[in-house]
Amino acid sequence: MSATTTATLLLCCPDRKGLVAAMAQLLHDHGANILEAQQHLDPEQGIFSQRIQFDLAELDIPRDQLEALLGIECGRYQMRWRISYSDRPKRVAIFVSKFEHCLYDLLIRHRLGELRGEIALVVSNHPDLAGVASQFGVAYHVFEIDKQTKAAQEQRELELLRREKIDLVVLARYMQVLSERFISEFPERIINIHHSTLPAFSGARPYHQAWERGVKRIGATAHYATSELDEGPIIEQDVVAVSHRDTIGDLVRKGRDVERVVLARAVLAHLEDRILALGRRTVVF
Amino acid sequence: MSATTTATLLLCCPDRKGLVAAMAQLLHDHGANILEAQQHLDPEQGIFSQRIQFDLAELDIPRDQLEALLGIECGRYQMRWRISYSDRPKRVAIFVSKFEHCLYDLLIRHRLGELRGEIALVVSNHPDLAGVASQFGVAYHVFEIDKQTKAAQEQRELELLRREKIDLVVLARYMQVLSERFISEFPERIINIHHSTLPAFSGARPYHQAWERGVKRIGATAHYATSELDEGPIIEQDVVAVSHRDTIGDLVRKGRDVERVVLARAVLAHLEDRILALGRRTVVF
Amino acid sequence: MSATTTATLLLCCPDRKGLVAAMAQLLHDHGANILEAQQHLDPEQGIFSQRIQFDLAELDIPRDQLEALLGIECGRYQMRWRISYSDRPKRVAIFVSKFEHCLYDLLIRHRLGELRGEIALVVSNHPDLAGVASQFGVAYHVFEIDKQTKAAQEQRELELLRREKIDLVVLARYMQVLSERFISEFPERIINIHHSTLPAFSGARPYHQAWERGVKRIGATAHYATSELDEGPIIEQDVVAVSHRDTIGDLVRKGRDVERVVLARAVLAHLEDRILALGRRTVVF
Amino acid sequence: MSATTTATLLLCCPDRKGLVAAMAQLLHDHGANILEAQQHLDPEQGIFSQRIQFDLAELDIPRDQLEALLGIECGRYQMRWRISYSDRPKRVAIFVSKFEHCLYDLLIRHRLGELRGEIALVVSNHPDLAGVASQFGVAYHVFEIDKQTKAAQEQRELELLRREKIDLVVLARYMQVLSERFISEFPERIINIHHSTLPAFSGARPYHQAWERGVKRIGATAHYATSELDEGPIIEQDVVAVSHRDTIGDLVRKGRDVERVVLARAVLAHLEDRILALGRRTVVF
Repeated sequence: MSATTTATLLLCCPDRKGLVAAMAQLLHDHGANILEAQQHLDPEQGIFSQRIQFDLAELDIPRDQLEALLGIECGRYQMRWRISYSDRPKRVAIFVSKFEHCLYDLLIRHRLGELRGEIALVVSNHPDLAGVASQFGVAYHVFEIDKQTKAAQEQRELELLRREKIDLVVLARYMQVLSERFISEFPERIINIHHSTLPAFSGARPYHQAWERGVKRIGATAHYATSELDEGPIIEQDVVAVSHRDTIGDLVRKGRDVERVVLARAVLAHLEDRILALGRRTVVF
Repeated sequence: MSATTTATLLLCCPDRKGLVAAMAQLLHDHGANILEAQQHLDPEQGIFSQRIQFDLAELDIPRDQLEALLGIECGRYQMRWRISYSDRPKRVAIFVSKFEHCLYDLLIRHRLGELRGEIALVVSNHPDLAGVASQFGVAYHVFEIDKQTKAAQEQRELELLRREKIDLVVLARYMQVLSERFISEFPERIINIHHSTLPAFSGARPYHQAWERGVKRIGATAHYATSELDEGPIIEQDVVAVSHRDTIGDLVRKGRDVERVVLARAVLAHLEDRILALGRRTVVF
Repeated sequence: MSATTTATLLLCCPDRKGLVAAMAQLLHDHGANILEAQQHLDPEQGIFSQRIQFDLAELDIPRDQLEALLGIECGRYQMRWRISYSDRPKRVAIFVSKFEHCLYDLLIRHRLGELRGEIALVVSNHPDLAGVASQFGVAYHVFEIDKQTKAAQEQRELELLRREKIDLVVLARYMQVLSERFISEFPERIINIHHSTLPAFSGARPYHQAWERGVKRIGATAHYATSELDEGPIIEQDVVAVSHRDTIGDLVRKGRDVERVVLARAVLAHLEDRILALGRRTVVF
Repeated sequence: MSATTTATLLLCCPDRKGLVAAMAQLLHDHGANILEAQQHLDPEQGIFSQRIQFDLAELDIPRDQLEALLGIECGRYQMRWRISYSDRPKRVAIFVSKFEHCLYDLLIRHRLGELRGEIALVVSNHPDLAGVASQFGVAYHVFEIDKQTKAAQEQRELELLRREKIDLVVLARYMQVLSERFISEFPERIINIHHSTLPAFSGARPYHQAWERGVKRIGATAHYATSELDEGPIIEQDVVAVSHRDTIGDLVRKGRDVERVVLARAVLAHLEDRILALGRRTVVF
């Protein structure tokens, strides 16, 4: 909407009186105008979380000083916090194997200006989708992986991601399980799309499982990757109706539409700093 | 719509050439006008299934002779078949425990004329909902159940169902597991509502499980009861969006809306003879 | 969840710096702990709106003094504001004609404890649904209306509503058009359910119109009543899929399910003080 | 699923006894095995319609003789009918202006094998999307249009469509109104996507209209183009939830996801010969 530069502050901590007032006052004292804010208090866990988006136009101190002040204030409340700026868009790496629908979807959304971020590169364990990336002028890196090479190839991938200053990794139907070590380098910064409404049909071939079980709804789940497969905090889910008339091939086709929308919503929410993971649950402001 | 009497024929058999023509011809030869028909061929299992609804106004033979002819024809094709008539509405027994929302829903739909069937009676293991049944003038039978009395009480329930010529048993949040013996007396004639999108969160307290797992969609599943708990053929499912703002209490509340709609759709489909169970899958015409 | 008494403050005003901090500080200064808060800035109209729910347990001044302070503070910012308290549930009057599904739905939700409010009475222009109200022990008042008697009868209705200290009027398929005078006594406090997704099919017989037009989705709209029929600010809408197989009767039946859910969501949001009307648009926190 | 060649027969006529039997018999007599069939009887209009898909593997007469027999039989019943064959995929022309999301969507679905048809060419009144077509190796024809040139340019477009034997024209956000003459050359063979749930917000800038009206659901409608703008028979519709947080830009973004899915479903249904238009209504088998 606006051409002004904004910052987004995400924070969470054990609930305590005066949190909202304290943060609002600190920002107000330094000329930051709050554009949008949401608070949430999880009543079962007693965790307070907040997202504040504010205008930087009249901020009367440099960003690093603001961050230093935030650090002090957040320390008082044992807050976990992070801040991002609209003039420093996040850099995204998309990991794929052989399915192109989610990759296409993200590339087109990027071209249409839907994503607040830059798609810096595509990584794959297969050369198949190089043509798709090149249609959109995005670099495509192949790291073939087998049991022997996996550790070394992941190491090279990590070097690439560091070199390219990647903020977010999107597993867009990437058919490899990432090692714990890889995942630990990108905590809450790897989004995976699983083609079922988890926890139903985790693991391999969920559409086949769904057909066998005769379900009447299939769906998809976007979640942060953790060391436990298909167990990370869920960001978004959705479903579509299916019937006895749908073959497994139809489930795959209908599922693609859900997968790409669910993944896109999750990526968009992450790029706009709307997501906080609290254990296995997420707050999506 | 129409005041004429209709019959509905449901059948399935291994696929073979000429099935559609054979059935259409037989009905045509005796003056039955087909109002609506659907066929389905399951390509994985090679099973043909069909639902034919036809007008009885100009049928030129008695019903029992038509059924005898159908028996012969269906025998030739190893068909499983059943027929029902619009002037003999199915008689329904609703089983409940302490939750009233599904019971209310079915009673109100019945009053509104949505259900082609008669709600003959309510069975419960608790006296709590007697008032709800009496609001609608429906008989309420209490069979208290504990480990010692279960077998005997089920026996008494079965006697009641037989005496009342019950065609369909609806478990509307009935918190007892029926014995195999009970279930075997009503094959494909007991519909249960489970408060999750099976196979996710089978068993007890699915909303609590869903909250813990942090899902973004909750739902409900209507299925035919079989001897394996929560494993029967699924008739209908649906979901509703939930967010971090929803407490477990909110999930229960939102879930109720899905439960009652999903259960009602399944009951309606059964009463209109739209459902065929093929193993763990259903065809819902 | 909690047994403590809470207050909910809803406010809106032209956007200005420091609004969030000012309100948070005022509440904090007097011991009010903020449980949940949402802000929204409408970028096209420049209107700031906010909902703050706070705990009254440690409030160190009486409520009337808090309200006086709020009045002063809100005056400085030209705020429109209102406050409500969880220990003073809103009193609701339901207006009906001859359709019972929405009435039943609200009465059952009330019994289930879903609605933060009291259903004080039912008003109708027909005696037909007296039995439904009495099933739930709610008073039922008949005011028969024709052209001659309308003004006088509305006057008597208004007297009843005043005498019973009614906060919210719900038109649950009430088939009379209220006069401007009536509506002006309950600004943003009359919720109507219209059986189409407005602005499509406003006016009479929307399901018939929808069937004629051959739409594939039908729906319902809950909105605040204003002096222009079917033009008030929309609170909630939803739809359901229909097909060529659905007769007008099926549309009516499927529509009932949407109507009652949409109306219930709107009533719930109003009773929880989540709604602000800004011209023809609503903010629903 | 199967590699065999199939035919699909669509027909409709005033209802009469024996229709189902007559068609089933005719096909059976010549070795055609019915794979799938649906009948529908519109009770208000008394119109019978049917879709029959059958296997050609053991057909014992040539296709033209089958068609001659069908012509005779259908003549007896005043049937409107058409037949198509799986080995003669329909040829599609996509018309676009400057919005690429629907074009991309159809091109990608074609590449993924979802569409039973061939995308033969793209027509546009602007050169902007030539690059998108060339990404997928599809011919792109520019016909610039203004008031003076419109008639002549449409004439040239029609010549192109005839030369390329186009069966279906898809208006994928094509911002020109086609002349009656153009439309009359492709009856029930031009599918348009309108970015609202018609009849709501017909005409220009529906998302702006929707934002102004403050609706809580936006959607899209795919319909056959007729000489009356936005009034053709509706094939498919769907909606997505929006809230006060959504700007007009957000509506446009969310709307794109609905537009492309709704358009794709309609195109798919047409290519599979599932649609019959009966006046302003469609049967979509």
